[in-house]
Amino acid sequence: MTTTSVPPLDPPLRVLLGPGPSDVPSRVLQAMAAPTIGHLDPEYLRIMDDTRSLLRQVFRTDNEITVAMPGTGSSGMETCVANLIEPGHEMVVCVNGVFGTRMADVAGRCGATVHRVEAPWGEVIEPEAIEKGLAEHPGTRVVGIVHAETSTGAHQPLVEISRLVHEAGALLLVDAVTSLGGVELKVDDWTIDACYSGTQKCLSCPPGLAPVTFSPAAFDAVRARKSKVQSWYLDLSMIAQYWGESRVYHHTAPVNMSYALYEALRIVAEEGQEAREARHLLNHRALRAGLEAMSLRYIPSRSLPNLNAVHVPEGIDDAAVRRRLLTEYGIEIGAGLGPFKGRAWRIGLMGHSSTQRNVTMVLAALETILGDLGASLDRGAALAAAGDVYAGGGR
Amino acid sequence: MTTTSVPPLDPPLRVLLGPGPSDVPSRVLQAMAAPTIGHLDPEYLRIMDDTRSLLRQVFRTDNEITVAMPGTGSSGMETCVANLIEPGHEMVVCVNGVFGTRMADVAGRCGATVHRVEAPWGEVIEPEAIEKGLAEHPGTRVVGIVHAETSTGAHQPLVEISRLVHEAGALLLVDAVTSLGGVELKVDDWTIDACYSGTQKCLSCPPGLAPVTFSPAAFDAVRARKSKVQSWYLDLSMIAQYWGESRVYHHTAPVNMSYALYEALRIVAEEGQEAREARHLLNHRALRAGLEAMSLRYIPSRSLPNLNAVHVPEGIDDAAVRRRLLTEYGIEIGAGLGPFKGRAWRIGLMGHSSTQRNVTMVLAALETILGDLGASLDRGAALAAAGDVYAGGGR
Repeated sequence: MTTTSVPPLDPPLRVLLGPGPSDVPSRVLQAMAAPTIGHLDPEYLRIMDDTRSLLRQVFRTDNEITVAMPGTGSSGMETCVANLIEPGHEMVVCVNGVFGTRMADVAGRCGATVHRVEAPWGEVIEPEAIEKGLAEHPGTRVVGIVHAETSTGAHQPLVEISRLVHEAGALLLVDAVTSLGGVELKVDDWTIDACYSGTQKCLSCPPGLAPVTFSPAAFDAVRARKSKVQSWYLDLSMIAQYWGESRVYHHTAPVNMSYALYEALRIVAEEGQEAREARHLLNHRALRAGLEAMSLRYIPSRSLPNLNAVHVPEGIDDAAVRRRLLTEYGIEIGAGLGPFKGRAWRIGLMGHSSTQRNVTMVLAALETILGDLGASLDRGAALAAAGDVYAGGGR
Repeated sequence: MTTTSVPPLDPPLRVLLGPGPSDVPSRVLQAMAAPTIGHLDPEYLRIMDDTRSLLRQVFRTDNEITVAMPGTGSSGMETCVANLIEPGHEMVVCVNGVFGTRMADVAGRCGATVHRVEAPWGEVIEPEAIEKGLAEHPGTRVVGIVHAETSTGAHQPLVEISRLVHEAGALLLVDAVTSLGGVELKVDDWTIDACYSGTQKCLSCPPGLAPVTFSPAAFDAVRARKSKVQSWYLDLSMIAQYWGESRVYHHTAPVNMSYALYEALRIVAEEGQEAREARHLLNHRALRAGLEAMSLRYIPSRSLPNLNAVHVPEGIDDAAVRRRLLTEYGIEIGAGLGPFKGRAWRIGLMGHSSTQRNVTMVLAALETILGDLGASLDRGAALAAAGDVYAGGGR
């Protein structure tokens, strides 16, 4: 047995401007490296309690059932669907990108009769489409929708849809993986029944945990189940007992990841939710002004502030540009997915990555590379347009 | 919004001698705090490849399908069961503690017809019992058994059982959460078809990932499924595509946890598997000699070297002793579970926690506390007995 073929760990220093993970503040990395303690240690239980309080703040909810699931964002999706759905239940799933598609897949695996309400990739789901879907399927128990569709950058309005869902007597399940902590999201005010997220986007914590919150109505539905939740690992009633006063052992919590989330949430709380959202919006406006000055066109009709999906210009090699950004500048941006494979770039400005410095850097690097590749560009226009926004001008 | 009620993170420095997590070497904590990179970054893909090589070494297998699942040890259990079982399949589950009980629960949720082969808690499963179970249920697809039953400390022999299982045409699924990296385990030599573990026991990495390996026969069974795996998150065929050459995006990998596992596995490889197992055995013999010199009786008929489950002496308050160990000495040991609640202590000597220093410290602390509580003790006998073992004597 030998380790000669395995070098010491020495990951390169990147600037993470893809669809997540985002750059992690050094405070969070340091917190994660604190000594491991037991998952039933009184101090660890204190950390869980305070994490729950901080998660409620960022979700803007009073929900008792607010936890961090021991898996990545997609485990949060599966937690919500698997706990709310019993075999044969009807579920409307809104599909306008990868993550709606995934939710429909998960729902089917949980035994739901899935009704898809679709919109073209890049578009949002219109309330009328939901209304029609609910009218056609009056037995619908749950409507699932993606607030921030990471594959297209589409920013889904939810208030009107929530009203329609509740009028129909259904529960609203929202994917907030990419929005939580950076884009306005109001779980209680918007009457969202179940909501999940990930840690590695606007919270700027490493990937590995899935914040999840359930309204009293949603958790009542879980408690009223006739069958066991098909996933033992994601059984929310058991998880809630561990997070609750009885502290019943379920799994060995990811202790050091919990340290990281705790510190990341403290940073969010220190900045303040409104200030954080305003920062994401300002840097988005500057980036957008710069990208559009380079004639790059946005894909979604309503773009998220923190994920900027643009078409790759005609005649430009998608992968070559991303490779040069990575190797020459250490900048990661995201590739297109599904129908946008090879045809889109996704530039994330999430959490700690959403800074004027990063906007400036990625615009400058992109302009240089595109210019080298022969794109027709007005050199300097991108930085000037972004600068205008920061100077209080811009659009 | 205010953070005044949430103090900075400052976890106490513990000595982790419970059933896991174990003490994490500072090299591993430092590795985990390296800057986060993307889950599709070329350097991250290199780390995945090398992690797989290191996992194969520690599992002692050549299995192509060897991965770290993005969840804690129990997600590894659910991965194995959910991928191997389709609704209506028959599964024999060996139950002699918490984790066999859990496996039966998981199997039922996956739609298996579960046949329990039971032994009293603390005993191991005898080959004859398996033989009888297989004879009664000739359609059995999978036999699940726990190699290291963390709730009782029972050390399950597997070679003869593996022979019986394969003679009956079934697949052998082994829970190695507590054994991997500290107790002899030979996946290929013992013809284990599916095996899962956790990171926080003998690998001395924080909790959060589940190493899993599938034999070609087991993965063939997965590929031959008629129905989708009920868990999207734990769908091994999709996970294998991400770990394989095609690198198809599935979930956002827990990047920093992966750093930690990488470094933990490098440490295991540097020490060497045989040397590591010998260390666990030596420290176990010393601890056992000391505990028995204090008249503490072991629960299991065949004890694991790394988890020492003993009866709480008559008249001694279980919780008071553990609380004093924690508050006065910073030592965590485990409480009893199930029928042993309040009636057992579980002292782990796992991975980095398995040292002469820790054996000496926990024996000295226990002797002091038990003496204070009026237990009849031959003061000094425990340390003398342990010392004899280290001096090359002992039993």
